[in-house]
Amino acid sequence: MQRAVVLVSGGLDSATTLAIARSQDRICHALSVDYGQRHRAELDAAARLANALGAVEHRVIRVDLGGIGGSALTDVSIAVPESPQTGIPVTYVPARNTVMLALALGWAEVLGASEIWIGVNAVDYSGYPDCRPEFISAFEQVSNLATRAGVEGTQSFRIAAPLIDLTKAQIIRRGIELGVDFAMTVSCYQADSLGRACGHCDACRLRRDGFAAADIADPTHYFR
Amino acid sequence: MQRAVVLVSGGLDSATTLAIARSQDRICHALSVDYGQRHRAELDAAARLANALGAVEHRVIRVDLGGIGGSALTDVSIAVPESPQTGIPVTYVPARNTVMLALALGWAEVLGASEIWIGVNAVDYSGYPDCRPEFISAFEQVSNLATRAGVEGTQSFRIAAPLIDLTKAQIIRRGIELGVDFAMTVSCYQADSLGRACGHCDACRLRRDGFAAADIADPTHYFR
Repeated sequence: MQRAVVLVSGGLDSATTLAIARSQDRICHALSVDYGQRHRAELDAAARLANALGAVEHRVIRVDLGGIGGSALTDVSIAVPESPQTGIPVTYVPARNTVMLALALGWAEVLGASEIWIGVNAVDYSGYPDCRPEFISAFEQVSNLATRAGVEGTQSFRIAAPLIDLTKAQIIRRGIELGVDFAMTVSCYQADSLGRACGHCDACRLRRDGFAAADIADPTHYFR
Repeated sequence: MQRAVVLVSGGLDSATTLAIARSQDRICHALSVDYGQRHRAELDAAARLANALGAVEHRVIRVDLGGIGGSALTDVSIAVPESPQTGIPVTYVPARNTVMLALALGWAEVLGASEIWIGVNAVDYSGYPDCRPEFISAFEQVSNLATRAGVEGTQSFRIAAPLIDLTKAQIIRRGIELGVDFAMTVSCYQADSLGRACGHCDACRLRRDGFAAADIADPTHYFR
């Protein structure tokens, strides 16, 4: 059985990604990154999801992206927008996926895992540069050059991004098929400490529209 | 004038890298990464060097690589070897340069800097996979795909690694020419809290041999 590091944020996409990896018999080591995000409740959700979906362990690595700034998700002085945005949104966190994949790579190397799974999605998050297939493939190349395994030729890393071409509705249907309890997931950029959602930010809107398009009742707990 | 993020660890190589960047008129933002390394004194050295060598600011980002393990530098249960090693040494930190470059990339994007400078060296550290030119060039590609700037086409990132093909003696001579005070730098993997070196680990040996080969008096403070 293949060993894999799966990035689990606590949201809908990464929960489905973990469920897909498990359905393909991967031994899954779940990794969450505490980068100073406002929506801290997603980290608690990540721990519960890792357990519920059969990861063998769950770790949280802290990295202080707030020290860099430049995003509404790590800088409380920048408001989370509540109307649709064009271009790259202010909720984009500079180099976030690069940092998370780099951390996953380090852990994969220590574990002897040859795969990293990440729930990026190029359809709904087309404004985020680090959700595009060409980014994933460039990082896969870095992975194979950056590591002991790559030099010794003992391991070839693969970055699996199974949601990259799916719509939110398709992701939700796939998750439901695989038994994901989406009530446990937290997507909202400004979720409260109980993990309840605002219902107005981009992440909430995409999620709500996804449930509607999939014709599945939205199990999200909203605080307003 | 070009704006650059320069990774400054507090060691001899990164000090010289910062001096080279300054000699080429870069506006330098120095970045140190506190990844839980045993040789904490190098972070104090980094702050002093950033100031002495004319960086406009210095920031330290914390990331908990100790949570990953797998290296003598972050796991105190693995001893730092004091005799020459073959292959990839146990002091290799999995994906360290990938993580540090990812953090530098995030900050560069926020600053509007188009360059990241890093003091990697393929000659003396040939055992470290992430010190090779092909790794640097693959990461440069990731940088241009991962970022807002890469998508909008407003900025093309360059990863500068000016020491990559130099011997330690050549690096030392270049640093001396540019006025680097190497007594301020800390290279030792197990430096004490005052920044004094053991004189026996790989990093100490390479450094001592470098001063001898450059025919320059070794200014290092040793604790034994």
